[in-house]
Amino acid sequence: MEQAIKVGIVGYGNLGKGVEAALKRAPDMELVGVFTRREPSGLRLLDPATPAYRLAEIDAFHEKIDVLILCGGSKQDLPKQGPALAALFNTVDSFDTHAKIPEYFDAVDRAARQAGTTAIISVGWDPGLFSLNRLFGEAILPEGDTYTFWGKGLSQGHSDAVRRVPGVKAGVQYTIPSPEAIAQVRSGARPTLTTREKHRRECYVVLEDGADPAEVERQIVTMPHYFADYDTTVHFISEEELRRDHAAMPHGGFVIRSGSTGEGTAQLMEFSLKLGSNSEFTASVLVAYARAAYRLNRRGRIGAKTVLDVAPGLLSPKSPEQLRKELL
Amino acid sequence: MEQAIKVGIVGYGNLGKGVEAALKRAPDMELVGVFTRREPSGLRLLDPATPAYRLAEIDAFHEKIDVLILCGGSKQDLPKQGPALAALFNTVDSFDTHAKIPEYFDAVDRAARQAGTTAIISVGWDPGLFSLNRLFGEAILPEGDTYTFWGKGLSQGHSDAVRRVPGVKAGVQYTIPSPEAIAQVRSGARPTLTTREKHRRECYVVLEDGADPAEVERQIVTMPHYFADYDTTVHFISEEELRRDHAAMPHGGFVIRSGSTGEGTAQLMEFSLKLGSNSEFTASVLVAYARAAYRLNRRGRIGAKTVLDVAPGLLSPKSPEQLRKELL
Repeated sequence: MEQAIKVGIVGYGNLGKGVEAALKRAPDMELVGVFTRREPSGLRLLDPATPAYRLAEIDAFHEKIDVLILCGGSKQDLPKQGPALAALFNTVDSFDTHAKIPEYFDAVDRAARQAGTTAIISVGWDPGLFSLNRLFGEAILPEGDTYTFWGKGLSQGHSDAVRRVPGVKAGVQYTIPSPEAIAQVRSGARPTLTTREKHRRECYVVLEDGADPAEVERQIVTMPHYFADYDTTVHFISEEELRRDHAAMPHGGFVIRSGSTGEGTAQLMEFSLKLGSNSEFTASVLVAYARAAYRLNRRGRIGAKTVLDVAPGLLSPKSPEQLRKELL
Repeated sequence: MEQAIKVGIVGYGNLGKGVEAALKRAPDMELVGVFTRREPSGLRLLDPATPAYRLAEIDAFHEKIDVLILCGGSKQDLPKQGPALAALFNTVDSFDTHAKIPEYFDAVDRAARQAGTTAIISVGWDPGLFSLNRLFGEAILPEGDTYTFWGKGLSQGHSDAVRRVPGVKAGVQYTIPSPEAIAQVRSGARPTLTTREKHRRECYVVLEDGADPAEVERQIVTMPHYFADYDTTVHFISEEELRRDHAAMPHGGFVIRSGSTGEGTAQLMEFSLKLGSNSEFTASVLVAYARAAYRLNRRGRIGAKTVLDVAPGLLSPKSPEQLRKELL
């Protein structure tokens, strides 16, 4: 057995916790510690034996860590942390602001090339595994259409939007894909679907004392960008119900490529996820790609990468020989 | 636009025809010709303008072809052709005798390394895309079980076995996955399934004049390895029905990873195919990987490879920048 890959976690929210848990199942990796901007002694770690450090001290770990898993958010944390930490360490992150990926890639790439590190960005399931399946779909069936459906799942951005409505004390939002639309796509029909036809939205809301339910509902369902283009249902529930029934973070979705070959033969490729916990699954994807980042760097493949650039075999702790024997 | 990738097809059965058709949809590739052991003028090509040559003349095309797509069979053709042609050209093939892949890999690898060529072996959907999904499943969810189901689909090997039974004039065999077993796996239950519980087999048989249906049926359903371990149904039909209803080659299947993360959170990954034509789809996968073989070789990545070794981005005619922008 080679020496274990030494891993650091930056940021300790749900995603960081998920990475800590996922590393326990990686026989070839070892957690060096969690790095936080908070007071380290205040963290409630899954494993109390996991060391926690101030992020400001991370420079001292330059020789002690093979790859950092960045678990901060795409809005506030990663735009700065991604390039700054790729200048010191191999990294993986789950940057997921789709429109800003090219810009983020360039910033991380510059830092990583200068430092000789390898940084795999935008790892997770979308972007991530869903991106891979969109690619396989269009590369293998160039004549065809790709459909992505999300859910049933708790959407963080839409839940935040609900909570900003005056009169809302707390709440969550679920994105629900239309079973009819999915069935139509699976039939090979290649329909043109509107936003409203693909997904509907369901909100579970706790009202502030004295708030007007009708007005809150109106404000939610007419909110531009977030809800106006969808069929949205608002349910009013108690704080206790919210805690009891809506604490999990399920998610998932479907990528379907419907195409044709030859003289119009129908061909269908489908990838789907049904996740009990969005953050734990994303964390598990990050851990597999952390292994790949370390290996790419050892082979001199420096700079920013995405899942599209990584040979799948690099994700597994098994040797190429073993993989060929067991999985092909 | 770069120069087109120049492609040759070796072997012109259903798979070779599928490759000829798939290349018409590849904007960056150009078909140089079909190579056959038969009399070239006797081939009925999809496009009569496609040049056909004797396989024996292929050495003369050394400078004129960037990558060869080998469309021969795994039993008779590829064990010899694979290493011999990898000694002259970059190649891709669909070698699918699972148990012999390590041995075949080594033979092709030796030839390719000596010649400085790149040879991607065992490309298609199983082995191929299904192998990739088995890998993603176990690398991302190390605690879990992987289930592969095949069908509904026409199985070539089992159809051949049916046709070898005395009294059988013609026939086909369909492999049918059990909907109950798939539902059980999708529920996250992680059942242990017997061979009989996973698939059943259905045969459509045309009898020779005077053959005894009961005896033919007995011989089929009790045949060791092929049918004895399955629930098998035999239908007797006329030659005309066989031609009319069973000429297509549909296939497909499912790879499901059912695993858990954290403190036992259920997570499910599923990849599935529903193929109107097995050979046309396999051909489309081969064409995408032919593009990758050529690119790997230009980067000095020589030797035998499998789908596990190929970064997915190499399959697409689009640039890495465009892929990041459109697909992540």
